[in-house]
Amino acid sequence: MNPTVPKLIVGAVLFEGFELLDLYGPLQIFGLNKDKLEVVTLGLRVGEVASNHGKAGSRGVIDQTFTDSPAVDVLLIPGGFGTRKKVDNATLLDAIRTTAGRATYVITVCTGSALLARTGLSDGKRATSNKQALKWVITQGPKVMWVPEARWVEDGKFFTASGVSAGLDATLALVAKIFGRERALSNAEGSEYEWHEDPTWDPFAKLAGLVP
Amino acid sequence: MNPTVPKLIVGAVLFEGFELLDLYGPLQIFGLNKDKLEVVTLGLRVGEVASNHGKAGSRGVIDQTFTDSPAVDVLLIPGGFGTRKKVDNATLLDAIRTTAGRATYVITVCTGSALLARTGLSDGKRATSNKQALKWVITQGPKVMWVPEARWVEDGKFFTASGVSAGLDATLALVAKIFGRERALSNAEGSEYEWHEDPTWDPFAKLAGLVP
Repeated sequence: MNPTVPKLIVGAVLFEGFELLDLYGPLQIFGLNKDKLEVVTLGLRVGEVASNHGKAGSRGVIDQTFTDSPAVDVLLIPGGFGTRKKVDNATLLDAIRTTAGRATYVITVCTGSALLARTGLSDGKRATSNKQALKWVITQGPKVMWVPEARWVEDGKFFTASGVSAGLDATLALVAKIFGRERALSNAEGSEYEWHEDPTWDPFAKLAGLVP
Repeated sequence: MNPTVPKLIVGAVLFEGFELLDLYGPLQIFGLNKDKLEVVTLGLRVGEVASNHGKAGSRGVIDQTFTDSPAVDVLLIPGGFGTRKKVDNATLLDAIRTTAGRATYVITVCTGSALLARTGLSDGKRATSNKQALKWVITQGPKVMWVPEARWVEDGKFFTASGVSAGLDATLALVAKIFGRERALSNAEGSEYEWHEDPTWDPFAKLAGLVP
C-alpha cells in the first residue's frame, strides 16, 4: 500500500424511507475496496434513520451531517419511497446539490435519480431510474434525458442505476472506472454476484411495459 | 387483509463483523412482504453494531436481545468475518441454538452456516456456505453434509445460502415456500433482481476451485 495516496471518500446519503438494498448493495461493493476508499454516511442529522421497510429491523445510521463532512469524492444517493417526500425538502436538496457538485462521481440508485434531478445537476444529461417508478421520476426532472431501458446510465460524472439491485451493477461499473475492471470482477466474485456488465441489459423495462 | 392471520416474525441475528449484503439482501426481500411478516433484529445487546466493513458507513442496529424477543418464525443468520470469532462465543451460540430450535425456518447466508453448524442443529443435514470460505466452514461442522456446489441448499427447515448475494436467491426460495412462487417472482421484479431460481446454479464453486 502506498501511504502517499489518500483514500477516496465515498459519501452515502441517508434519509427516512431509503430503500435498504439501494444503499447496502453499493456499500457492500465499496466496502470490499477499503484499502482504497472510506465510506461515510451523510444526512441532515446524525443518528439512526428508518428505512423504507420501517423502523424495526432495518434502520440505518447517519455518521455525519453534510456540513460537518469532508468533501466526498463519490456521492451515493439511494432511492426508496422516502424520495416521494424528500423531493420537496429544499434543505436536503441544497445539501445534495453542493456535495454532488463538488464530487468527482455521483451514483444514484432507483428513485435516487429523482433527488438528483431536483437539484438540476442532471439537466441535459442521460439518466435512468427504477422502471416501475419511472413515470413519476420523469416528472421530477423534465430537462433530464431519461433512458427507459438501461441497467444503468453513465453520462459524465453521473452513474444512474435502475431499480434496487441494479445499484450493484452500477457500483461495479464505477469501481471498474476508478480502479480497473479486474478489481470489479474480483469484487463481484467476492460477493458471489453475477455482474451484469452490459449497461443495456434490462429485462425490467419490458416487464414494466416501458418498451415493447 | 385477514386480521385473524398473525404476521410471521423474522428475526435477523446481528453481531460485530456481519457482512452487509448477507443481512440487507434478505431483509430487502422480506421487507417487500411486510403485509405478511415483521422483521426484528436480534443480538446479545441492543443498539448499533459495526459491520464487516467497519464502523463508519455501515453499522446495523439491534432492536432486541434474544431473551426479550418473541419467538421467531424465521431466523436469519448472516455471515461475515465476525463469524471467525463468534464461532467461539458460547453465549451467542446458545442463543442461536434456542431461537433456531424453535423457529419454523432457519436461513443462513455465507459463513452464517458456520454459526449454525456450531450449534449442532445442522448435524446430519445438507448445507452450503461461501465458496471462498468453505474449507474453514467445514472445520466448524464436521458432522454437517457440506455441499460444495450449490447456490443454496434446502434440507428440512434449514435454507443455507452460498456467499453474500446468494442470500437474495435463498430468501426468494423461502418466500416461495411460505407464500408461493408468484409472490417470490413479484419480489424479485420489485427489486429488479434476476432470481437464480435453480439452487444448483453456482459458477462460484468452480471459480473457487471446489469443483473441476
